[in-house]
Amino acid sequence: MNKIRSATTQLKRKLGPAVSTAHDALFAASFDGSKLSFLPDAVVKPRTNADIAALLALANKHGVPVTTRGAGSSLTGSGSPVQGGWVLDLSKWNRITVDADAGFAQVQAGAVVGDVHKAVEAKGWFYPPDPASKQYSTIGGNIACNAGGMHGGKYGVTRDFVLALKGFLPTGEYVEWGTATKKFSAGFNLRDLWIGSEGMLGVVTEATLKLIPLPAARWTLLTAFEDEVAAFRAVRALFAQRVQPAICEFLDRYSVACAERKSGKTVFEGQAGRPVVLLELAGSASEVAEQKETVLAWAKGHALAFREARDRAEAEQLWDVRRKCSGAMFALGDSKLNEDIVVPMRNYEKFAVFLDKLRRTSKLSIPTFGHLGDGNLHVNIMYHRDNRAEYLRAEKAVGTLMAEVVKLGGAISGEHGIGLAKTPFLRLQHSPAQIKAMQAIKGALDPNGILNPGKMFTLFKVWEHPRLKIALPWDHK
Amino acid sequence: MNKIRSATTQLKRKLGPAVSTAHDALFAASFDGSKLSFLPDAVVKPRTNADIAALLALANKHGVPVTTRGAGSSLTGSGSPVQGGWVLDLSKWNRITVDADAGFAQVQAGAVVGDVHKAVEAKGWFYPPDPASKQYSTIGGNIACNAGGMHGGKYGVTRDFVLALKGFLPTGEYVEWGTATKKFSAGFNLRDLWIGSEGMLGVVTEATLKLIPLPAARWTLLTAFEDEVAAFRAVRALFAQRVQPAICEFLDRYSVACAERKSGKTVFEGQAGRPVVLLELAGSASEVAEQKETVLAWAKGHALAFREARDRAEAEQLWDVRRKCSGAMFALGDSKLNEDIVVPMRNYEKFAVFLDKLRRTSKLSIPTFGHLGDGNLHVNIMYHRDNRAEYLRAEKAVGTLMAEVVKLGGAISGEHGIGLAKTPFLRLQHSPAQIKAMQAIKGALDPNGILNPGKMFTLFKVWEHPRLKIALPWDHK
Repeated sequence: MNKIRSATTQLKRKLGPAVSTAHDALFAASFDGSKLSFLPDAVVKPRTNADIAALLALANKHGVPVTTRGAGSSLTGSGSPVQGGWVLDLSKWNRITVDADAGFAQVQAGAVVGDVHKAVEAKGWFYPPDPASKQYSTIGGNIACNAGGMHGGKYGVTRDFVLALKGFLPTGEYVEWGTATKKFSAGFNLRDLWIGSEGMLGVVTEATLKLIPLPAARWTLLTAFEDEVAAFRAVRALFAQRVQPAICEFLDRYSVACAERKSGKTVFEGQAGRPVVLLELAGSASEVAEQKETVLAWAKGHALAFREARDRAEAEQLWDVRRKCSGAMFALGDSKLNEDIVVPMRNYEKFAVFLDKLRRTSKLSIPTFGHLGDGNLHVNIMYHRDNRAEYLRAEKAVGTLMAEVVKLGGAISGEHGIGLAKTPFLRLQHSPAQIKAMQAIKGALDPNGILNPGKMFTLFKVWEHPRLKIALPWDHK
Repeated sequence: MNKIRSATTQLKRKLGPAVSTAHDALFAASFDGSKLSFLPDAVVKPRTNADIAALLALANKHGVPVTTRGAGSSLTGSGSPVQGGWVLDLSKWNRITVDADAGFAQVQAGAVVGDVHKAVEAKGWFYPPDPASKQYSTIGGNIACNAGGMHGGKYGVTRDFVLALKGFLPTGEYVEWGTATKKFSAGFNLRDLWIGSEGMLGVVTEATLKLIPLPAARWTLLTAFEDEVAAFRAVRALFAQRVQPAICEFLDRYSVACAERKSGKTVFEGQAGRPVVLLELAGSASEVAEQKETVLAWAKGHALAFREARDRAEAEQLWDVRRKCSGAMFALGDSKLNEDIVVPMRNYEKFAVFLDKLRRTSKLSIPTFGHLGDGNLHVNIMYHRDNRAEYLRAEKAVGTLMAEVVKLGGAISGEHGIGLAKTPFLRLQHSPAQIKAMQAIKGALDPNGILNPGKMFTLFKVWEHPRLKIALPWDHK
């Protein structure tokens, strides 16, 4: 501890006003979207590359933990400084430059994803990754957890749009991975190793993003189904026709019920409480018109009911239901385990059957919604924190869920990452040899273990840690 | 040497007939497409995963170099066993399974890329990466060098289509990276670290490939330009209109002249010896029809002349010229330095001016062609091996070329990788800190340095090594 204190004194001497140790600043940087809070020793808002280099060199020399953050909106605790030390706040590093001819965006790590969308769309380009947090989460954070969103099935995730990264090794050495070109095959691919590494292998300061032409037309269809198995079967039949909707969002009956209770409106008039799938086609006007016929014929054959959005305003109303259902779930419990698992398409129906069984055995509400284009489902295990029996059933249910997902050939996280919250399940996904290889890489690049220590590999019993009772600016409640 | 001999004896005892030490087998495995030849001590055709695990465990224990190969068609020497040891031949591991509903292909490392194309296209799916070697190169090799091809600009490269890998660590431990899903954010991304690592970090035995719906329609346009600068400027103007042709292939006047001399036919009737750009649109019928109007209007405004292919047969004839021009170049010299550099789009014209200057100063023929959708140009420095003055000018020219490419913000290799041939230039692309990080990873995963040693980081003076005078089955000559 004294070691950190003396290093912090040196840091202040070097970086001056960029370093804050005021309690308010430390508290604000002590937690992320998970609301797991651990006070850091200092918060640093670097002004230049030299500031970052100096901070890392000092941290590396004295073994000070460094947690890099943008908005701090991670849901896994990956942005909470669990071992104290210094929080490197890049939220002001938010410059966005668009190369409108080549279709690239040069973006600093602190740029908010929604601002990137606006900047590139103004120039006729499209950056598809769109996590639900897009209005506040940053590109740096999206890179750290390889964020996805609704467009992942057709277009891909953050990793698929990052061409190059600039930043720093844990030693403070400046590095660049990749060039602002669509092909690069010169040396080991540390660009992609950094993507999804949750700030544990390096500090990203800037990224070159690949853009695609902005789809000229969009068309939205709402469909309702008898039950979840019917919805999943129908969606598989659609994909089997080689149709790739830009978005294919699913809400099970429990999510729909939450949204309806909260809003006082029926999601699908006449189909109250039915699971729904919200489809959006995107492309050129003629392409969308062509696919629309296929999708309408599919809906006639598979859906209980379906309704086209008459215009963008009506489409927006439909999407609004989807966005609000997550917050509406707190009617079912004051605590939520939001698991962003992935299930391969061939096992969608099996998973629906499993979830029903999990609801029965756990006696918990588990509203589920998500992205059927890529099988990334948000399974929300709701419970009341002060009810010990519920809490224990929730703990057990999440373990059962994770084991099933892996058994079905899926992933324990599709877009949130491991952080602290998913450390108990990493060993379900990865064999000892795989984890050993990851840790060997961590040791090779960060021998003093300063970058975001305590995450991913160290078992963190999230159940034993209280969460702050605090409302974040973006909380739905 | 005795150490390797005794290990080979043990290997034979373990794997029996899978191991060959016959001279013919050793010679055939001694070189790749670079024709740089180094005799290995044994060639192993494993029958099972257990064979591979045993081989690697033994190699790791005794420090025996292991070079993994499929077709051995690498152009950089990455498949040549420069330090002897064992060649692990996976060419018979060529099973291809298509999940026609989900749009995935499960492919063993030895599967030939063209066979993957055929298998998935038969089911209405498309695997875009299409290196010129596709009729003989394997998926494993394509993963090793992150191969690209003509479709890279619009669709991406091998990395963009690999969802999961199965294989072995250098220790012989079996590992899986990623799942057969489009989202995965659980643990460090070793999948992408392996992609492009030229067989130096692990052995890939199987990959899950992401597929996209097969475009229903294609349309081909041949355009001719006054000179290279005009061609590059025109192409940039096309991309600035947010049009993304599936293919946009460029042949400079020297490549056209080679093709014309060899075939006795004019590439573009009435425009003999002019640089050409061959464009292909792909998509739904209506999408292609829509984009075609934009492209024709562009051609009227920018090209000296243009001609639509009337049908697929005529389009095929046009593509045939493109494919044959590489072989036709040997009329200009008996040796070729085929550099697969990448230039950012904003610097296309600057690069054309530079190349003209390089031709003048080096007094060498440097026909150039390539992929304008991603700036990946094949710069072919032709010389006569026995003419010492030419040979020295070629050596100098390639160094000048690489320095310029990096200066323009590009990459020294876009799809071939480093291997042996490009080791002199790795330090132009990467800073000492970057190379140190790569080597730290190599040391962490392969502490005994057994996988493909002597590649990428070790300076190899390709000039001082004779190349075999041997015709490969796929040689154009």
